[in-house]
Amino acid sequence: MKELSGGITAVPGFLASGTYSGIKKVEKKDLALIFSEKPCTAAGLFTKNEVKGAPVIISQRNIKKGIGQAIVANSGNSNACTGKQGTKDAEEMAALTAKALNIKSNLIYVASTGVIGEPMPMEKVRNGIANAALRLSKEGGRDAAEAIMTTDTFLKEKAVQIDVGGKTITIGGIAKGSGMIYPNMATMLSFIATDAKIASSDLRDALKAAVDKSFNMTTVDGDMSTSDMVICLANGVSGVSITRNKGYKDFQDGLNYVCTELAKMIVKDGEGATKFVEIRIKGAKTFNDAKKIGMAIGNSNLVKTALFASDANWGRIMCAIGYSGVKINADKIDLFVDNVKMVGNGIGLGKEAEMEATEVLKQKEFAITVDLRLGKAEATVWTCDFSYDYVKINAAYRT
Amino acid sequence: MKELSGGITAVPGFLASGTYSGIKKVEKKDLALIFSEKPCTAAGLFTKNEVKGAPVIISQRNIKKGIGQAIVANSGNSNACTGKQGTKDAEEMAALTAKALNIKSNLIYVASTGVIGEPMPMEKVRNGIANAALRLSKEGGRDAAEAIMTTDTFLKEKAVQIDVGGKTITIGGIAKGSGMIYPNMATMLSFIATDAKIASSDLRDALKAAVDKSFNMTTVDGDMSTSDMVICLANGVSGVSITRNKGYKDFQDGLNYVCTELAKMIVKDGEGATKFVEIRIKGAKTFNDAKKIGMAIGNSNLVKTALFASDANWGRIMCAIGYSGVKINADKIDLFVDNVKMVGNGIGLGKEAEMEATEVLKQKEFAITVDLRLGKAEATVWTCDFSYDYVKINAAYRT
Repeated sequence: MKELSGGITAVPGFLASGTYSGIKKVEKKDLALIFSEKPCTAAGLFTKNEVKGAPVIISQRNIKKGIGQAIVANSGNSNACTGKQGTKDAEEMAALTAKALNIKSNLIYVASTGVIGEPMPMEKVRNGIANAALRLSKEGGRDAAEAIMTTDTFLKEKAVQIDVGGKTITIGGIAKGSGMIYPNMATMLSFIATDAKIASSDLRDALKAAVDKSFNMTTVDGDMSTSDMVICLANGVSGVSITRNKGYKDFQDGLNYVCTELAKMIVKDGEGATKFVEIRIKGAKTFNDAKKIGMAIGNSNLVKTALFASDANWGRIMCAIGYSGVKINADKIDLFVDNVKMVGNGIGLGKEAEMEATEVLKQKEFAITVDLRLGKAEATVWTCDFSYDYVKINAAYRT
Repeated sequence: MKELSGGITAVPGFLASGTYSGIKKVEKKDLALIFSEKPCTAAGLFTKNEVKGAPVIISQRNIKKGIGQAIVANSGNSNACTGKQGTKDAEEMAALTAKALNIKSNLIYVASTGVIGEPMPMEKVRNGIANAALRLSKEGGRDAAEAIMTTDTFLKEKAVQIDVGGKTITIGGIAKGSGMIYPNMATMLSFIATDAKIASSDLRDALKAAVDKSFNMTTVDGDMSTSDMVICLANGVSGVSITRNKGYKDFQDGLNYVCTELAKMIVKDGEGATKFVEIRIKGAKTFNDAKKIGMAIGNSNLVKTALFASDANWGRIMCAIGYSGVKINADKIDLFVDNVKMVGNGIGLGKEAEMEATEVLKQKEFAITVDLRLGKAEATVWTCDFSYDYVKINAAYRT
């Protein structure tokens, strides 16, 4: 596997653009367009929130055929809780994009992220889509990544080349997300392209597997959004066929890598985050047990504020393990931060270990490892700390 | 029902004290003793956290016989994750208390709250218990309430007299709690006394019902503690018998009132809280559905930071309803803050309603009402907002 620079347009046959259409109050890019010169097989995963944005509903409908060719996405307005007008607006966005690109509107995926409950400013969107279509280019991937940002502080893109039986395919993607990040969904917006030739059913399985180990293993604040969506388009331009019997594992590895790197970027850019924390749960009876415990730790405000303060308060971690809903044996638990063992057999190992751990927690990135010593299953969850700035950002979001 | 001043020692036959024994680093009361001159029937509810403090385990063992006469409780150290030594220490606390009061040690309940994972300073505790026993008095209820405080900013006590068939019984209690507050447990420490004569099985049922509608309907930060405990002692001194056929409803009403008032005080004193919010869910299919939705709203960091900022960002409330795990119809939902309707049939009612709502949210106390319009079940949850100070308090807790 070889990393490429760039993201979605590092994949042959894909063009993109990102422009300012006026949806955002400040003049920052707010409309992204991604276009494959050839029709693609397509797979998508969507938020499990019962309250869904109108674009989610439209895109879920279109994904059923397993084909697609373009994605239109805006930031600044999520078009959620907007009733029938919202649905009409999302459908119009698909129709306008289809017209500008001269393709059918059921090949279009629509995604919106931003404030919930405000009508889409369609006059601006209409001009925006026309403009974005004119600006599509091979270099536009970065602009597209920028145009889907909301409270994100940096743009998120990743691309890799992988070798499949001596031939090369490319997988590239972009993502956005910073707050309202919680798993059990397809997570925030992420768009992934590949030039592999792969049936939509296989693409869906590979995407589901990749998302379950990447985006779905992250948490920033425990709030599951109404607009989360991951779409993957495969245009087959490489001429390399991926089937269950040929190249599937290589493709899966590449897809996992791109999704995991994008997911980690989202957590690193967590609202107000000052630290990136990998939580490794080992020795669980099942993957689900391990994930539940990792998420209980990763979602605990008390753990996260302690991490912010570089306070080696392992009692809060033990407490979160205890309420995770998983049957454990507290007297067996070992706990490490990086290589420093803080807890052995459920009991703290004293002041010296705590002082060493404090030094680890002062770093920008570190790992917390919990060994339950009950079985062989493992899971890795990514989270961030919880600082004053999370409150600041979210108290001020709409002002 | 008539409110009395005071708390636990407003109940005839109960004495209490609260002293400084040196468990806390700062000189603030840290050891509470509650004693009934006569043996009592007893009921208790305990944390459901898999990681339990040693005192929880001891008290759970003693409660099985349904009798009790004294409670010894300390703040400053939770004696949790302290291994076999912790269990020995909790047993010694019970034994010391029994000796000082000249009663059997299986009549003693032990409770500890504070930092997790540090050994109990038993030398200090030994002197403290002897001292606390000497200071037991009719006026000591307030001191006991003070001695169980950790990050609490005010002490929590409540007492009522109720009329049962022309005779009077008294119910009084104290509680502590400010952070690590989340339901599905018996919640933080609360000790309740009554001079009613009631069998321990009936007392347990009444206590469970009261706690389910009070402490278990609150959330501050979604973190369930390792040390939560509610103990109720009934000494029968009033001579008034409560049975399923006689006075039970009156007793239940009184117990509900005391528990609800104490639970609300805990939320009002939530770490960093600037606002107290009642969340009323109406029109649900079941109580559990209503509670789940109320808790999803009450636990959402995004909702709580918006409340802190007096931002009428109802989209975040809709989002939390959507991920609560309850099947809903978003297009039916009505949403109010106090009497201001903000959302009708799932859609925002515009800028004017939002401006009125903003005024409501500037108050110290208000209600959010969600009508799902799916059924007749209701639930009320109490929560607080989420401010910079929550982060400050919990980033600095051990320093």
